[in-house]
This record gives sequence, C-alpha cells and structure tokens, in this order.
Amino acid sequence: MAELDDTQLGLMDRYWRAANYVSVGQIYLMDNPLLREPLKAQHVKPRLLGHWGTTPGLNFIYVHLNRVIKNRGADILYICGPGHGGPAVVANTYLESSYSEIYPEITQDEEGLRKLFRQFSFPGGIPSHAAPETPGSIHEGGELGYALVHAFGAAFDNPALTVACVVGDGEAETGPLAAAWHSNKFLNPKVDGAVLPILHLNGYKIANPTLLARMSDAELCELFRGYGYDPLFVEGHEPMPMHRAMAGSLDLAMDRINDIQGGARAEGGSGERPRWPMIVLRSPKGWTGPKEVDGKKVEDFWRSHQVPVSNARGDDAHRKILEEWLRSYQPQELFDVNGHLLPEIAALAPEGDKRMGSLPHANGGLLKKDLLLPDWRGMAVEVGRPGETIAETTRYMGAYLREVIRLNAEAKNFRLMGPDETASNRLDAVFEVTDRVWMEKIESYDVHLARDGRVMEVLSEHLCQGWLEGYLLTGRHGVFSCYEAFIHIVDSMVNQHAKWLKVMAELPWRKPIASLNYLLTSHVWRQDHNGFSHQDPGFADFVANKKADIVRLYFPPDANTLLWVTDHCLRTRNRINVVTAGKQPQPQWLPAEEAERHCVVGAGIWKWAGTCGGGEDPDVVMACCGDVPTLETLAAVDLLRRELPDLRVRVVNVVDLMTLQSKATHPHGFTDEEFDALFTRENPVIFAYHGYPYLIHRLTYNRTNHTNFHVHGFQEEGTTTTPFDMAVLNQIDRFHLAMAAIRRLPDLGAEGDRAIDKCRLSLEEHSRYVREHGEDMPEIQKWSWLHKTAAEARD
Amino acid sequence: MAELDDTQLGLMDRYWRAANYVSVGQIYLMDNPLLREPLKAQHVKPRLLGHWGTTPGLNFIYVHLNRVIKNRGADILYICGPGHGGPAVVANTYLESSYSEIYPEITQDEEGLRKLFRQFSFPGGIPSHAAPETPGSIHEGGELGYALVHAFGAAFDNPALTVACVVGDGEAETGPLAAAWHSNKFLNPKVDGAVLPILHLNGYKIANPTLLARMSDAELCELFRGYGYDPLFVEGHEPMPMHRAMAGSLDLAMDRINDIQGGARAEGGSGERPRWPMIVLRSPKGWTGPKEVDGKKVEDFWRSHQVPVSNARGDDAHRKILEEWLRSYQPQELFDVNGHLLPEIAALAPEGDKRMGSLPHANGGLLKKDLLLPDWRGMAVEVGRPGETIAETTRYMGAYLREVIRLNAEAKNFRLMGPDETASNRLDAVFEVTDRVWMEKIESYDVHLARDGRVMEVLSEHLCQGWLEGYLLTGRHGVFSCYEAFIHIVDSMVNQHAKWLKVMAELPWRKPIASLNYLLTSHVWRQDHNGFSHQDPGFADFVANKKADIVRLYFPPDANTLLWVTDHCLRTRNRINVVTAGKQPQPQWLPAEEAERHCVVGAGIWKWAGTCGGGEDPDVVMACCGDVPTLETLAAVDLLRRELPDLRVRVVNVVDLMTLQSKATHPHGFTDEEFDALFTRENPVIFAYHGYPYLIHRLTYNRTNHTNFHVHGFQEEGTTTTPFDMAVLNQIDRFHLAMAAIRRLPDLGAEGDRAIDKCRLSLEEHSRYVREHGEDMPEIQKWSWLHKTAAEARD
Repeated sequence: MAELDDTQLGLMDRYWRAANYVSVGQIYLMDNPLLREPLKAQHVKPRLLGHWGTTPGLNFIYVHLNRVIKNRGADILYICGPGHGGPAVVANTYLESSYSEIYPEITQDEEGLRKLFRQFSFPGGIPSHAAPETPGSIHEGGELGYALVHAFGAAFDNPALTVACVVGDGEAETGPLAAAWHSNKFLNPKVDGAVLPILHLNGYKIANPTLLARMSDAELCELFRGYGYDPLFVEGHEPMPMHRAMAGSLDLAMDRINDIQGGARAEGGSGERPRWPMIVLRSPKGWTGPKEVDGKKVEDFWRSHQVPVSNARGDDAHRKILEEWLRSYQPQELFDVNGHLLPEIAALAPEGDKRMGSLPHANGGLLKKDLLLPDWRGMAVEVGRPGETIAETTRYMGAYLREVIRLNAEAKNFRLMGPDETASNRLDAVFEVTDRVWMEKIESYDVHLARDGRVMEVLSEHLCQGWLEGYLLTGRHGVFSCYEAFIHIVDSMVNQHAKWLKVMAELPWRKPIASLNYLLTSHVWRQDHNGFSHQDPGFADFVANKKADIVRLYFPPDANTLLWVTDHCLRTRNRINVVTAGKQPQPQWLPAEEAERHCVVGAGIWKWAGTCGGGEDPDVVMACCGDVPTLETLAAVDLLRRELPDLRVRVVNVVDLMTLQSKATHPHGFTDEEFDALFTRENPVIFAYHGYPYLIHRLTYNRTNHTNFHVHGFQEEGTTTTPFDMAVLNQIDRFHLAMAAIRRLPDLGAEGDRAIDKCRLSLEEHSRYVREHGEDMPEIQKWSWLHKTAAEARD
Repeated sequence: MAELDDTQLGLMDRYWRAANYVSVGQIYLMDNPLLREPLKAQHVKPRLLGHWGTTPGLNFIYVHLNRVIKNRGADILYICGPGHGGPAVVANTYLESSYSEIYPEITQDEEGLRKLFRQFSFPGGIPSHAAPETPGSIHEGGELGYALVHAFGAAFDNPALTVACVVGDGEAETGPLAAAWHSNKFLNPKVDGAVLPILHLNGYKIANPTLLARMSDAELCELFRGYGYDPLFVEGHEPMPMHRAMAGSLDLAMDRINDIQGGARAEGGSGERPRWPMIVLRSPKGWTGPKEVDGKKVEDFWRSHQVPVSNARGDDAHRKILEEWLRSYQPQELFDVNGHLLPEIAALAPEGDKRMGSLPHANGGLLKKDLLLPDWRGMAVEVGRPGETIAETTRYMGAYLREVIRLNAEAKNFRLMGPDETASNRLDAVFEVTDRVWMEKIESYDVHLARDGRVMEVLSEHLCQGWLEGYLLTGRHGVFSCYEAFIHIVDSMVNQHAKWLKVMAELPWRKPIASLNYLLTSHVWRQDHNGFSHQDPGFADFVANKKADIVRLYFPPDANTLLWVTDHCLRTRNRINVVTAGKQPQPQWLPAEEAERHCVVGAGIWKWAGTCGGGEDPDVVMACCGDVPTLETLAAVDLLRRELPDLRVRVVNVVDLMTLQSKATHPHGFTDEEFDALFTRENPVIFAYHGYPYLIHRLTYNRTNHTNFHVHGFQEEGTTTTPFDMAVLNQIDRFHLAMAAIRRLPDLGAEGDRAIDKCRLSLEEHSRYVREHGEDMPEIQKWSWLHKTAAEARD
C-alpha cells in the first residue's frame, strides 16, 4: 500500500479543493467559470437552488475513496445518502471524466465547466440530488431514509463489491435508516460484498442540530457496537490532519473487510456474523465555506445548509464573499488555462470502470442477465369443469418460484423478500431448494435458516423494499411478497422508485433493469381473522397515480392466471408490477391454455359463466376483477340463472386492471371499441372489484357506458368475522350483486321482486347463522353447485 | 414498599394463571368456560383465530404492573405493542372488573366468562388486537411499529403518568420502532411523564426467530445504552424465579424513574437528559402452553405464535391437549363455584381509576379540554382589491398558532410537530412564544432550542405522526406540518389512526378526541427548487378512501381562508383534517368576511373574478381548487377577458374538496341542486385542481354535468425548474387553461383560433426565456395586471 506522505496528502487536498470549487460553481455561477474576470452580477444565477452544507464532506469522502480504489483495485459503489448532494457527485464524476463520457457536451475545458455550472438546478438542466441523471448513482436521496438499505441490497450476491454508503445525520433520524443498520444480520461475507457505512455527522439539518451529532462519542460507540459494527471515528476541521485521519481509518476499515472476507471465504471459515467496520466522520457543515455572513455564524452551523450567501447576484457585499470563497480554493492551482484539471491532480482518480462514476453496478442494466424461467404450463393446476378443483392459488406461484430459484441458483441473481410471511403466504415450496438467510445464531430446531439462501425475511417492509430496490438497481431480479394492507408502509418508497424509473427510461445510457414485482396476498377479503386493522386494498389506487408506462396492476382470479402473470412480470423491465392474489383454498376456473388466452388480452368475456352467447346482447354485464369478486360474481350469476332463467347475463373478467383505461392514457388500455365490445354501450354493468370502488370509476369515467357502471368493492366495513360475512358487510357478496343486477332491470317486474326477496332472506339467514355458529353456512362454503351449474352451461 | 414474600409471589402467580386461563378460554372456547364437564367438540370454536404466543408474557407484565400500581399509587398506562395481544388485555381488564363496568353484559360469573370467551374473534364480537373496543388501550398493534412512539406521545405533558410500553421483538425490527427509541431525546423529566419500555424478547415471529432475541445480552446492552437507556434484564422460564426477578427489576426501574423526576423537578435540577431505565424480558413464546404437539416443538418456538393446538374441535387427541393445558392452570384454585375470581386473588388488582383498564388517559376524550382559540379575524391580512396584496399564506397561520400556544400555555395541551420545517414552512412566529424541545446538548449559538417547548422537530415523519397520535389519544391537541410529498411516509399510520377513529366513534364509552390536523405545505407547485423527488400531491387521494365522516380535505386559496380553516379544524373532533397551502409569496384574494362566507359553504362562485353575473348562464365554468390553480385560473380568465370580451366566464373556487361528493356519500357533500347551481348542468367546466386530476373525476362521476368536466392537475411532469414552468409542464398554467376553455367552445370560430395561437406563442416565448435566463419572465411574476383587471370588473 502506498505510504501516506505529505506530497500525496497535498495532492489529495488539491483534488478536494477542485471538487469543492466545481460544487460551489454549480450552485452559484452561470458564467465566468474560471474567474478569469472579477465576479459580476450577471455571472451569478438569478435563482440559487443548491445545497452547500453537505457537499464538502461528500467531496472529502469521494476523494479518499478514490485513493482506496487506486491503491487496492477495489470496486466501490458510492451511495450518497444526504439530500441535495448532487453538486458533490456531479463535481467528482466530472473531475474523473466519467461525466463527460456520458454527456459529451460537458467537455473537460472552460466551456464544459461553464455548461456544467449553468445546468445545475437550472430549467432544462439537472436536479440537485444524486438522481438518475447522475453517473455512478443508484440512489436519489430526495426522500431520506433509504441509503443504507439500498447499499445492502447492492452488496448481496456481489462478493467483489464494496458499497461505501454515506449516511447523513439528518437521514439517520428516520425509521427506515435506524432499522437498516440491522441489515448486517443478513450479509454473508462469504457470498456477499461489503457495506462500509460512513456516518457523516456534520451536525445540522435545515434549522436544527441533529440527534446523533449531539450524542457523545461514547454513546455513539455503544449504539453502533450494539448494532454490530466497529466504529472508527474521524473528527476535526483542519484539512491536513483530517486527510491523514480519514486515509488511515479507511485503510483500517478496508483491511478489516479484507480480513473478514478472507476468513469467511477460506476453507473452514466460521460462518459467524462478523463485526463489520464503519466510519463516523465528524466534520463541519459547510466546511471551507464562509464562516460568517451578515454577522451570523454560517460554517459549522445550519445556516450553511442551502446557499450560505443568498443574494450574490443582487448584493455587492454578498458577491464579494462568494468570490473570495471561490478564490480560496485557488482555481489557478487546480485547472490549466484551458480549464483542464491539472494532470498531477487528475492522476489521483481511478481509471475506466473503476471510477465510481463509471462503475457498471451503478447502471445495473449493463450487468443484468435475464432469468432462466421454467415453463409455467408444466406446473399448471388441472382444471376440468370450472370451479371443480379447489386449490390455494399462491401455492402454485410458490412452486413456480421454486423452479426460478433452482434454474438461477448458479447465477445467484434472484431473491424473494417478505416480512416473515413466505410460508404463511403459501410460497413455502421455495424451501425445497433454498433457505432463509440468517447470520445470527442458528439453533438445532430452527427450520430453513441458513447462512446462504435466496429468501430474506425481516419484520420490516421498509427493509424488504429497500433491499430489493438496491438489488434490482444493480442488475438483479426479485419478488416482494407482502400482506396487502401493510404494503402501504412503503408507499413513499414505491413513489421514489417509480420516479427513478420514469426518469431513467428517458436516459439512453441507463440500461433497463428488472421490474419491481409485488405479490400482495393475505388480502382484504380473507382478513376476517386478523380484523379491520389488516384490511386495506388501497395500494392499487396509490400506484395508479404513477406514470402509466411504469405501472401494471394484475388481479389473477385463480392459479393458472397467477402463473401466467408471474411468468410475464419476471420477463418485464423498468416496471412496477403489482399482483394481488389470495392464498386460501378457492375454486379454480381456467385450464392453462384458456388462462393464457385470457391473460394475454387482459380482460374478456367468460362465455361459459354467463347465460348468453358472446355475440348476443346481454341484459346485464356482471364484471369482476379479483379472486373473491370473481367467485361471488359467478355465484350471483348462478343464482340469477336459477331464479330468472330467461335473463341474458354476460360475465366479464378483468385480470389486467389497466385495460380499463383508455388506450391514450395507458399502453395496456383498450380502445373504446374493444371496451364497448365487452361492457356494451348502454346496458347495466355490475362490477365487483377487489378494492375501493372509486378506482374503477376513475379508470372508466370517459367510457361510453360509464354512467351504467355500478361498482361494488371494499367500503371499509367488517372486522373479525367469517370470510363470507366480510363480503356481505361490504355488499360484494353474491346476494348483493344479484340484487344490484335485478334493480337495474325494472322490466323484470314481480319476478325480479321475488328474486330480491329471496336474496334478502338468504342474507338474513346467513347473518343469524354466522353469529350463532361462528362460521359460514355449509352451503356457502361448498362450490359443488357452482361448478355444476356453470359447467352444465359450458358442456 | 411491601416485601416480596413467597405468599405474595404465590398469589401473583395465581393471578397470572387466571389471566392465562381466561386468555386460552377466549381463543378456544365457546362454552363450558369453567370446565365443569370434560371438554367436548361443541365447546370449542369452529374457527380458531387468536394468537397465544405473545399472551402469557403480556399477562405476566400486566400482573406485575398491578403490583407496582398498588404499592406506589402510580398512574400507569399499559401499551400493548405485540400484535394480536387482545386476549391478554381483555383477560386482565376482565379480572380487574374494568371490562364488566364498560360492558355490563360480560358479568363477573360463569355466564359472563362464557360470553367473554365466545365473543373473542367471533362474528359480531371483538377483535384479536388491543383495539378501540379494549378498555385501557390507546394502541391497536394491528400494524406493528408504533407502540413506543405512541407511548412517548402519551407521556409528553403528563408529569404524573408512567407509560409501560411492551415492545415485541417482532415489532422491534421495524423502522419506526427503531427510530422511536430516540424519543428519549425529547422527553423532559421535569414536565413530562415517564416511559418504561419493556422489550419482550420471546424469540419468534410467525415463522422465524427475531433479530433482537438472537443477539447476545452484551450486544443488546450496548445497543440500548447507546440509545440512552439503562437496560435491566429479566430472563428465564421457571415462574417463581421469574416473578421474583420481574418484581425486583420493576421496583428498581420505578425507583430510578422517581429519582430522575425528583432530581429534575427539584430546585436547581440539572435539566440534562437522564439515562432512563428499561426492561429486557426474555421469556418463552407460548409460555406455559403445550410443550409439543404432534411431536413438534411448540412452547418457546414460533409454532406457538397462533393456536398451538389447531384441531381441538375435530381431533380428540388435540382436544385432550387443550383440556390438559387449561386444567394445568387449576381453575378451581382461581374461581369460586359461581365463576368469580377468588377474593384473595382479586385483591391484587388496583382499584377505581388506578386500574389500567379504567385509566382515564386511555380514553383521552374524558380528559380533553377544548383549546382556547384566538379570534382569527383579528390577525387576518388586509385585502383591498383582489390580488393586490402579496403575502406568504402560511405565515398567517404561524401567527395564529403563536396565539394558540400563548393562550394555552398554562394548560400545556397543544404541540406543533414537524420534521425540521417549522421555520421553513413560515410558521416561525410560534418561536416568539415558545421553543423547540431539545434534551441533547444546547450550544450558546443554538436558536430556539430549550428543554421545554411546544414545537417538536425530528427528521422522521413517523415520529412526528406517532407522537401526535399518542398525544391526541390521551386528550390533547396538535398540528403536524409537513412537506406535502413526504407525508406519504406515514400513509399506513394515518390508515391505522383513521380505522381507530372509525371504530371509536361507534363506542359510546369512548369520548371524542381532538382531530388529527395536517398542514401540508412546500407543495408540488413550489417544489421547482427541490425537483421531481419532492413532487407528489397524492395524499389527498389516499385519505379520500377512508370513511367519509372521518376525513376532510381543505385547499384554502389564500391567507384568510387558511386562517378560517385552521380555526375550524382545531374546533373539530375525531377527524383527520388535511389542509394544503403554499408558503411562497402569492396574491391574496378574500378579505376576512368574504373568506368566512366562502369557507362556511366550502365552495362558491367568485363573481368578481368571472365575466358574467351570478344569475347569468355562463359559456364556460373555470373551477379551481388549491392556491396555484386559483392563481392560474384567474390569470386564464383575465386572458379570456382580454381576448374574447364577449365570453361569459364563471369562476368557481373550491376550498372544501368534500363538497364535490354527493350528499349521500359525505356529510359535507353538496346536493345535486347545489352542485348544478355552481357547475351548471351542461356547460363545459375547466377544473384546475391542485393534485392528481383523477380525484376530481372520482368525486364527481355521478354528477349531472360530469361528462363536461375537464380536469387539469399534476401529471408527474417537471423537475428542477421555475415555478411557472412547473405549471406549464403539467398544463395547469393560465395558457393551457384558457386554451382548454376555448377548445370546448367551437362557436368562437376564428376569434377562438386566434386566441389559441396567442396562447401557444406565449408558451413558446416563456419556454425560451426560462431556459435562457433561469427564471420566469417578469410579466409572469407580476400580479399587477391581474388585480387591476379583476378588480375593475368588481368595482
């Protein structure tokens, strides 16, 4: 390892000054980038939108990581946790030339510098975060909390990678970040890479000190040792001693990581969870910036959070402070007359793909290998007459995922995440070929825990989501299986990922990554045992607000449709696929070929389930989306068939919810002709939907027949009760659906009234029975009548 | 303090056995509650839905807290963090008689026991969580993560209260819980109560060990000392030694709390953050339950999580295990022949309001005092001609909140929460009368930090939300001010609170609590400087799915309407009020009296802003909801007035979004007549809405004129740019709105085409200017033309 002599430290300090200079330039200047002339008002941007406070610390870390990479040939992914850290990452990727290679118009000369400065936080330019536009970034840091969990996601199954994760002390106050420290209990030094957390305590948020910065070193040391780390403290503000301390601590940390990995990977490695190193860096907020402005403390205080000199365009005194500040970095010692970084400084940066701005892991699509996928038809459930076979739908998905894991075992590029519910969600077939990762103690009686495994379970939706995001963004694949109601815990994370995908798709140099796939199960209609707190189907509403080309919502009504959907989702890229399916025993409707035909279109008429031919004009359309709504709709049609034999009923089943939107709004949307062919132009449509009924209205409000849509769905009713009673309380059960249809058909007259009375009586009888016996009436629980009548109709 | 002799420990053990017996009974039995006859199939519920695993530990803690209360006369609030802990809290509140006082049909005899058992997780009965139905509870524990943050919320400003908070080791893996430990940095022993966390490590989740339980005591000790606590370990499984250890540790902890509070409250108390005690309780999951079932380990393993004996109704062997298990508690030693708890055992429970099931704090409405509120009219902004005054809207709310804090300073029953943004959100007037609470080190140069204060800032929306929930549920008041985009972080918490409110309102014994009030600011239309990651107005969509009588969404267009709305929200109960308003300088429209008239109705015609009288039939309705949409709509009307002077334009402004829903759906909804009177029955409506346009369609789809609604809103476009460019990119700017109106009026012919061309040119000119200069064109930034033309129309 190269010695840390004063010459090298001096060069590193100049590199750091260059990065700071280029950062301040981005925040303030639109012209005169090398200060060839005294700073004038017109050189300063009219709107100052950057954040200086965190930037010098980020630059400091970047420069020191460069040294580590050069010395060791390490692959280091830089995760910039602090919000608005854009100037630092952009400055450094520019200085190392990664930036100009991706954006050739930002040249390595004065004109390039001018453009670089001008574009920052400027209309039509680039954001102030380490966004998708930023080379080397997989993490935006717009919403705080997810730096560390992304870092671990990136490190899993990447044994040669070290993820240097800068955690700001603001972010460190968030819940997701506080839990993410425990990710070390899932990181295996034998097969995974390393995460080196760098907790950057610069002391302040927007207008407050931070909790962690005001804790004593003793308390911090206990906290992080308790989390399982070995903290190394680097503290101060004098640049040269700080360079020496940081370089020394980084060397120690990297040596320790080498030792840990070497030990674990050697024959007979212990397999125990090691105590990983981390760095606690205490440096002043706004380091090297103005100490005071207008008589108020700025450096090392929260006033340096955004722009320390606020009116540099309009106020001569402010502009003078800015100019002195910029000149304090002595740009003439950093750049040559043409604006090139001087070669002796530039030589400190790594080369080629070793540069953090060019690391392929940060552009995961470059590394992504398609999954090897099994033929789902081979594992389809046998379905004879519709409804005859009873099966747990998600169990078939479990078998499919087992094969996915088996086929890609060597590639190690697929993981299944979930908060302790893989078995509960009936995906336990995967445990035939893999285990849950667990780096804590394993007892002899533990089940399916191992140091290595494709399944990750932790009681934190935040960690599941964040790990998977980090894993996908670095070019791998995965599925997150979650209780439907609790997926709202990660609403805001999904939001940020959707935004990342939207912007990424607009950047040709960013290669497509695998989609983020959800299985939402233990859903609202089978939460009768967990009660009201576990009942919320609103994630679909949330996701539907995101950009149309990103989002897909699937509601497969049975096992074979779920198999098709799973297979399909694992082949897609750059999307968020939300699949909702139940785990309880339920009737199966479609054989494999029919399931495929149905799913490819996304929605269609189930002729066998209705009472009129496809070409015939129906009196009423009974539409359904979701497994329980489908069952109840078919039961309602059966009831109508018996009570009103002359009624022409059409059944439409929707698997891909986005087909309901117009073609102009969503790429999967039906044309108006296609839509009208299913739902008619003027006949009543009784639509049983899995979630909140409003979503159907929202998606269909501009369709011809919308005024005749009557949507039944979840109405926030019901708690601990029976499955069928949950449906009744929300009026999505067969009786309410049948009554709704009859009420829209006044021509039925007395015959209709009689049928309605019959439904009412059945509901009363059911309600009494359930409250007395604590379970649904036997005839409700049986499907035999259903497959008989529906199948007779088909035969 | 009473000595811990064997007699007392023996009695406590019997109490515990009684609680365990009543818990198992709830989970399994629907008859034969005292086992007077051998257990038969029909005595066992057909669907077994409870969770045994956590229950014995919860019972153990409850019994020991009873002892502490009796000995010390303490007020202790019991927070049951573990999910599905219902059987324990119900059993204990029944044994202490709190339950029967609230639910007189559940008597203290055999018949009462029978009903108690039967109702648990039974249709029409009670949930398996410590839900609103459960006496003594302010916390459901359905979705895990919030026990500790609720506990701290309850303790703030309650100096005589100790909150004993049981944290399950499953929950301890979540992010919100991991951050909540830091709440001790905000708890002042002088003015607040105490929180005694009891980390209950029973080792397992649904199907996995837990992270914390598998950590060594040494690591746990470091972790919690690092968080600032002094952990006391109670570990084992033999009942009598465990009773002794628990009683001793609780005494130590309570003594330590007394010392801390005594020191802090004495003359010259240090004011430093103390090291609070906590208890780490390691006890077996499913303690005292069956050790093995079907040859598999059950006690002290995850198989005891739900029902350890799954088929006790259908399988004789299983039923035998259940019967032996029940009899192992020796019910004949616990209850007399009538089913009364034996008096020597019953005497262990506290009396009256000291019983944890009867503590008034757990039914906060009992303690709630209405806030003293200032007259908002006295602090209204002077508005002459509409648009003439420019002001930062939220600054007026800040002044109002300052007066709220001043008026209620003595009552200490109002707090303002926010993630480090009180000043940034222009609410800093509050710092004239109070400070931010801060129990860490305070430096001489810190600003508005103090040991005591009404403002709580931490960079965790989860903590802000959870503290406020705990504070409200124990009878106090508050406001949470948040960046609009990041309120999604707490979607799922809001969900759970809304569910609590819905159920609570159905229970007459639960008294109404203060509403949960949000100010969402730094909103989507002024996130041009923070960029795409900070742009999301979808919280309204999320909240609108909740039960109608709980939810209110307000979009005041200026300062005086915001004042009215704030004042109104602080007077309401049992609601979730979401107020969205900008913090940037903007034109003010309505003087106080007009603001009041407008807000009381919720939406109305702004005659002065349109170009036709109120009675006249307009050619087009320009509707707006939100401050920026209102501004752009008025500018669009101004443009139409100039270009098409004969056009009759009506302006409708909506403050209370729920007015758009039908009267049948929402209590604030307009009747169809009222709605049609504003929006006409057949004329085009160009609706500029603050958020995602779908929400307007969702709310209005069944209105007469809905097919003519053309909604402009946020389309997920725009990033770092200028404010006006953000509007343009999402087509909610004046030019797009004007063009939208003209396009719906084909009769305008060539005159309309010319106006459209003019708009297009303006847009092109704007786009060029912004990209060149980095700021909006001066004429866009000026409002003078606006108030002139609009006011001339009014004069």
